[in-house]
Amino acid sequence: MKSYRKELYFNLPTRRAYVNITSQVQQCINESGVKEGLVLVNAMNITASVFVNDDESGLHQDFEKWLENLAPEKPHNQYNHNGYEDNADAHLKRQIMGREVVAAVTNGKLDFGTWEQIFYGEYDGKREKRVLVKIIGE
Amino acid sequence: MKSYRKELYFNLPTRRAYVNITSQVQQCINESGVKEGLVLVNAMNITASVFVNDDESGLHQDFEKWLENLAPEKPHNQYNHNGYEDNADAHLKRQIMGREVVAAVTNGKLDFGTWEQIFYGEYDGKREKRVLVKIIGE
Amino acid sequence: MKSYRKELYFNLPTRRAYVNITSQVQQCINESGVKEGLVLVNAMNITASVFVNDDESGLHQDFEKWLENLAPEKPHNQYNHNGYEDNADAHLKRQIMGREVVAAVTNGKLDFGTWEQIFYGEYDGKREKRVLVKIIGE
Repeated sequence: MKSYRKELYFNLPTRRAYVNITSQVQQCINESGVKEGLVLVNAMNITASVFVNDDESGLHQDFEKWLENLAPEKPHNQYNHNGYEDNADAHLKRQIMGREVVAAVTNGKLDFGTWEQIFYGEYDGKREKRVLVKIIGE
Repeated sequence: MKSYRKELYFNLPTRRAYVNITSQVQQCINESGVKEGLVLVNAMNITASVFVNDDESGLHQDFEKWLENLAPEKPHNQYNHNGYEDNADAHLKRQIMGREVVAAVTNGKLDFGTWEQIFYGEYDGKREKRVLVKIIGE
Repeated sequence: MKSYRKELYFNLPTRRAYVNITSQVQQCINESGVKEGLVLVNAMNITASVFVNDDESGLHQDFEKWLENLAPEKPHNQYNHNGYEDNADAHLKRQIMGREVVAAVTNGKLDFGTWEQIFYGEYDGKREKRVLVKIIGE
C-alpha cells in the first residue's frame, strides 16, 4: 500500500471566499503514484470547509447569501463563542458545508462526475489556513 | 490491496425523492471480495446526495418540508445560479444532506448500526443521475 | 494492509450533549499499529453525529441554540416521523452536523490541525448509543 501526504496553504484577502482546488488535488494524486485508492481532502482549520459542488459564480453568491441567512456573522455578540473571538458564525457555516471530501482514485485520476469540482470554503480568512491531502492505495 | 468500482444509475420521475440503496451497496461489497476495508458511496451529480438515516416514510416527508424551508425551490429567481437553470435549491439542499458516505466493511458486510440505511437523495430528478461505489481493502 | 475495529459506547444523561472523543480515537490508532492510513469514526445510531470542531463550551452552547432554531425539538407533532417517536428533530440535526469523520493517520498519529478535535454529538440521549472506529493502513 502506498500513502501520500501534502498540505495546501491559503491566505485569502477576504473573510469569506471559495477556491477551486480540483487541479491541486489531481496534482497530488499524480505525485503519489496511486492508481487505485482513496483521497481524503480536509480543512485543517475549523472555520473552513472542503466540499464538492459546481464551479459557477452565481451559485457561490447564493452560498454567501444562504449561509449568512442560516448562520449570520453579525451581530457578533449573539454567539457565546464570541467572548474573545468574532468567528462563531464560521464554525457554524462550516458544519453545513462540511469539513472533508473523500473521493475515489481510479486509474490515477479523480473519479468524478462531469461537474464535480472540489472547493476550499473560507469563512474566517485574512490569515494562513491549511488543507490536508492524504492518499492511500496502490 | 483489492479495489472495486461500480456506478449505480437513477432516473426518478419526480424532482425530489429518496431511494434506499443499502442492498445495492452490499451487493457491490459481495462482488468486490473485500472482507476488511472501506466503501465510499458518493453522488456523481452535484444536485443529489448520499447519506445514512432512517428508512421511515414519515421522516422522508419531514426531510422534504424541512429542506424546502431551509432552501426553497421557488421562486426560482431568488437565486443567482438560476439564470439558465432552475436548480440552485438542489445545490444547496445537497450541502445539508451530504455528498458521500464512507462506511466500514467488516467480515464482508456493511458494518452498520441497527437502523443505519444508505439513501440516494434526489433534488433535481427526471433525468439520469449516477452514484459511484468504490471499495478498497483485502 | 492492517485493519482494526472498535465500538465506543455512550449513555448520556441528557437528550443533547457533546463529548470530545479525540483521545479515544488516538488510543484506537495506537492499538491498531497503523502508521499510515485512514481512520473512519461514525455514529452507529441515526440520531447522533460525529464531527470535528472546537473544544470550546461557548461554541457548544451556540450549537444547541442554532440547531434548535433550524430543527426545533418541539412541538413534537410538527413532524410526520413522530407518530410513535419524539425524535424527528434528532434525525434532522444530525444531517447538519454529519454522521462521520474520516481522518488521516500519519506516523501513527491523528493528522490534525492545531484546533481540530473529534466530537460525539448526541441528539436523543438517555440510552446506550455506539460509535464505530475503523482503521485501515499499514
